[in-house]
Amino acid sequence: MSQSGEFDLIARFFAPLASGYPGAYDLTDDAALLDVSDGNPRVVATDMLVEGVHFLPDDPADRIAQKALRVNLSDIAAMGAEPEGYTLAMSLSTLWDDAWLEAAAAGLRVDQDRFGVHLLGGDTVSSGGVASLSITVIGSVPNNQILRRSGAVSGDDLYVSGTIGDAGLGLRLLQENDDSGIDPALRAAAISRYQLPEPRLRLGLALRSLVNACIDVSDGLVADLTHLAESSDVAAILDLAAVPWSAAVEACADYAVARRITAGDDYELLFAAPASRRSAVEAAAETSGTVVTRIGSFASGAGIRILDPAGDEIEVDDTGYRHR
Amino acid sequence: MSQSGEFDLIARFFAPLASGYPGAYDLTDDAALLDVSDGNPRVVATDMLVEGVHFLPDDPADRIAQKALRVNLSDIAAMGAEPEGYTLAMSLSTLWDDAWLEAAAAGLRVDQDRFGVHLLGGDTVSSGGVASLSITVIGSVPNNQILRRSGAVSGDDLYVSGTIGDAGLGLRLLQENDDSGIDPALRAAAISRYQLPEPRLRLGLALRSLVNACIDVSDGLVADLTHLAESSDVAAILDLAAVPWSAAVEACADYAVARRITAGDDYELLFAAPASRRSAVEAAAETSGTVVTRIGSFASGAGIRILDPAGDEIEVDDTGYRHR
Repeated sequence: MSQSGEFDLIARFFAPLASGYPGAYDLTDDAALLDVSDGNPRVVATDMLVEGVHFLPDDPADRIAQKALRVNLSDIAAMGAEPEGYTLAMSLSTLWDDAWLEAAAAGLRVDQDRFGVHLLGGDTVSSGGVASLSITVIGSVPNNQILRRSGAVSGDDLYVSGTIGDAGLGLRLLQENDDSGIDPALRAAAISRYQLPEPRLRLGLALRSLVNACIDVSDGLVADLTHLAESSDVAAILDLAAVPWSAAVEACADYAVARRITAGDDYELLFAAPASRRSAVEAAAETSGTVVTRIGSFASGAGIRILDPAGDEIEVDDTGYRHR
Repeated sequence: MSQSGEFDLIARFFAPLASGYPGAYDLTDDAALLDVSDGNPRVVATDMLVEGVHFLPDDPADRIAQKALRVNLSDIAAMGAEPEGYTLAMSLSTLWDDAWLEAAAAGLRVDQDRFGVHLLGGDTVSSGGVASLSITVIGSVPNNQILRRSGAVSGDDLYVSGTIGDAGLGLRLLQENDDSGIDPALRAAAISRYQLPEPRLRLGLALRSLVNACIDVSDGLVADLTHLAESSDVAAILDLAAVPWSAAVEACADYAVARRITAGDDYELLFAAPASRRSAVEAAAETSGTVVTRIGSFASGAGIRILDPAGDEIEVDDTGYRHR
């Protein structure tokens, strides 16, 4: 609002991201019009990324913008919904120049085409502070097919998609400028996982009718499993020996398991499904092109129990774990 | 996300703002569910407020939060829509303490009750930078009743609600800590207009079937009239002698007319209606309890022509105006 040059910037870089969605009015009106004549419920998710907290000042502009979109798409995936549009509000300072905005818009274009969403509206502010990007995604899901955090029951299997801890490793490698002792390709892979999470939208759709509860792992495996167990009023049992690690994570001997499972930014789906549906879950993973691993189960009670590879229960905090 | 204490803060201060809207799940899930079974189109608007740009660090917390909501409600009003819910993302730094958040939530509660909206979702991040609040409001409007910027035609009357320039004066009084020469009650009124704009939702509803084009004045009367004229592909004629001023603005002899009509943050509705509907527009203003003033007209052509009280055309920039 009322920034000198804001209208030019919107017209040049962002209005093209709204084309193809008539209700976005090429970002020239006060609001966008969303056609909901199918009557399907809409889901709405909001996440804000802040420089120095969720991305680093030197991260590439396209990846910063894509991450802001993708963390929201991950929320949509966790609800079993399909994304349709998003709004973008940006507060920019040192990063603000035409080249940065052009790269950010190009990144969003790639993701819009890939994930089937359009920009519905935006706001760009030049401030004296750190940069922040706030995105709100709207998606749709047929009635009664929404995935919630709260449906896990005793006896359910616990699954996670992809691998865990990569983003935390990538952040560490970036912050420490650490390239000693890890293969450059593995280093790049871990950094990419931090900068460019993969929203599991196709998996979320495939799981709609199969799972009892679902959440995306944004705060770390342990934290989000705790959220899911609390919401479902059951206890979760996490089998550490089964948690899937990437080659990059396995290559870092000093990256403790306790850190991997408490690091954030994984954006994998963590879900509960009845044991009777194991083959169906495997089929859903296969059709969606996503690796899924069974890493535990649910039982009556409360809290989360973590078993080490010997099957002994351990306690975890962010400095390590110990046997109980 | 992943801020220490974020979940406690959300549960304490913001989850209560989601109660009463079942699909908000008390802010405990990945996204909110929006019931759109009436099939009415939804409108979506996003605006971000940044400390030092749209509000001052010392502004009261409740007013900062209310302004963030209200500038978005003003966009909804300009579309002739009714608001139903909103998401809130906040990046906070020095302002972050429990007392600030409690006051902000209390302000939002007041406005939620008054304007009939619920909090659908949120994100709170602690950063090292200036504070910013990003809100996305979702509203609904029956098909074909949406108000656009683009429908004004030659011969239409030009109207504005309320008074113009108050917020710009309020900002100046705050920034200059200026209380000389203006009555304290008038000073407080101007500051209140800056900190707490009045979204003209009832007027927007009443105008649905009457007006050809509508916009809210956020960037200043001249700038937003230019937007409306450009979108509608007509010329606008602004009669300065007719523009309504508040007692506070009239009391400030050194607050030039050129500044009043280029200052932002008015959040009044600016609209075009056929001359044949003058009595209907007056009736709509009366039923909605909003003062509306006819301040010009539209003609074929392009651009905006500003007439001084003698009827002579003048040019305006942000430092003053001169005769052409």
